[in-house]
Amino acid sequence: MSTLRIAEIFGPTIQGEGALIGLPTVFVRAGGCDYRCRWCDSLHAVDNAHRHGWTPMETRHVWAKVRELSGEVPLTVSLSGGNPAIQPFRALIETGKPEGYRFAMETQGSVARDWFDLLDMLVLSPKPPSSGETVDWARFEECLEAAGPARCVLKIVVFDEEDYLWAKAAAARFPTLPLYLQPGNHTPPPPEALDAAIDMEGILQRMRWLVDRTAEDRWFAPHILPQLHVLLWGNRRGV
Amino acid sequence: MSTLRIAEIFGPTIQGEGALIGLPTVFVRAGGCDYRCRWCDSLHAVDNAHRHGWTPMETRHVWAKVRELSGEVPLTVSLSGGNPAIQPFRALIETGKPEGYRFAMETQGSVARDWFDLLDMLVLSPKPPSSGETVDWARFEECLEAAGPARCVLKIVVFDEEDYLWAKAAAARFPTLPLYLQPGNHTPPPPEALDAAIDMEGILQRMRWLVDRTAEDRWFAPHILPQLHVLLWGNRRGV
Repeated sequence: MSTLRIAEIFGPTIQGEGALIGLPTVFVRAGGCDYRCRWCDSLHAVDNAHRHGWTPMETRHVWAKVRELSGEVPLTVSLSGGNPAIQPFRALIETGKPEGYRFAMETQGSVARDWFDLLDMLVLSPKPPSSGETVDWARFEECLEAAGPARCVLKIVVFDEEDYLWAKAAAARFPTLPLYLQPGNHTPPPPEALDAAIDMEGILQRMRWLVDRTAEDRWFAPHILPQLHVLLWGNRRGV
Repeated sequence: MSTLRIAEIFGPTIQGEGALIGLPTVFVRAGGCDYRCRWCDSLHAVDNAHRHGWTPMETRHVWAKVRELSGEVPLTVSLSGGNPAIQPFRALIETGKPEGYRFAMETQGSVARDWFDLLDMLVLSPKPPSSGETVDWARFEECLEAAGPARCVLKIVVFDEEDYLWAKAAAARFPTLPLYLQPGNHTPPPPEALDAAIDMEGILQRMRWLVDRTAEDRWFAPHILPQLHVLLWGNRRGV
């Protein structure tokens, strides 16, 4: 079986973002990323400086941990990162699905894998200008194609007006995909801090702005959702 | 056309609760209710003492207001209350649907109507012990039957352990319905106050307790979601 590079496995807690918001989930966070977003809120799983904290684990050990955390009761497993698409997750999914577990994955859509079609949900998060990254739309579409029958949704983080306009244009490319806009956290946790302070009022203010902004445009297609875990637990890790 | 008794029409703003959380919505809140929950957060639309604030409106005038607020761009209309099921909403739905608008309704499930099957979503919220009300399950099932092909979901407000255990038993009656648990607001707005203070920390604490409580029981079926509008705007009305 394949070896995965794991930053953390935690839960069950609720999914705090996007289409599965509120759903009890165990998170498997892979270490390593092909992006380096300016406002990354998971630097401990992205920045190579923290790779000493990533544990190479055999798939069966990852699976044993998921089963232990969930008390062997099937639930949704979220594969996140970093970019989980750069890791060999096929075996984990193939192990868990026959036991009734469901799998969702969060990725920026930069790397397509032939196992995406095993997922129950693929959350594609193309990164807006404020990230400092540039989306390769050809690769992004390869991800969509690879997902085949899996439910795909778009999730776009929005920090400012430029991001907002970009999100509108990006969403227009994929009019049939359910869309989730998410206000960004401009006070993400530094990777070495387990419980850094956040600017809660600023985060709430950006969320209110985004609600008003879409209403002003009469743009009613997107769901607009904050990072619920941030509202509930701040920047605390593992919840 | 029929006359509706309207407490307020407002939006677009995001749906703050349940299955459609985050979705831009215009709310049509009817005045009057056959229940009187102890912790009702919409007393201005429930308590007969406030009926002087309810406006009898012809359906076409209600519809004109919805179109005006939405700039004639179709979106989701949420029929709420009070109990909207005690009002003749058929004509409003039949007016809006051909224009592309979608209709969701929130009701406790005490009164069934033959127009429920015109809804895009019926949110049934059976009230737990802390409400002081008692659910008539035969009537509740009549509501489900009346909904026919409409998407139905269960939403249960939970204040305490007794409510939680009740919610588990209630959910077990309807294992195929998507389920949403919602921590209650023990500091609901008094009907005469437009922006009363709330105990935000207490509300967040109940949400965290509910996440932990379901995890402890390995009960992974429900979505657990707070009232997002309360987190964003407190008890302010009309958002």
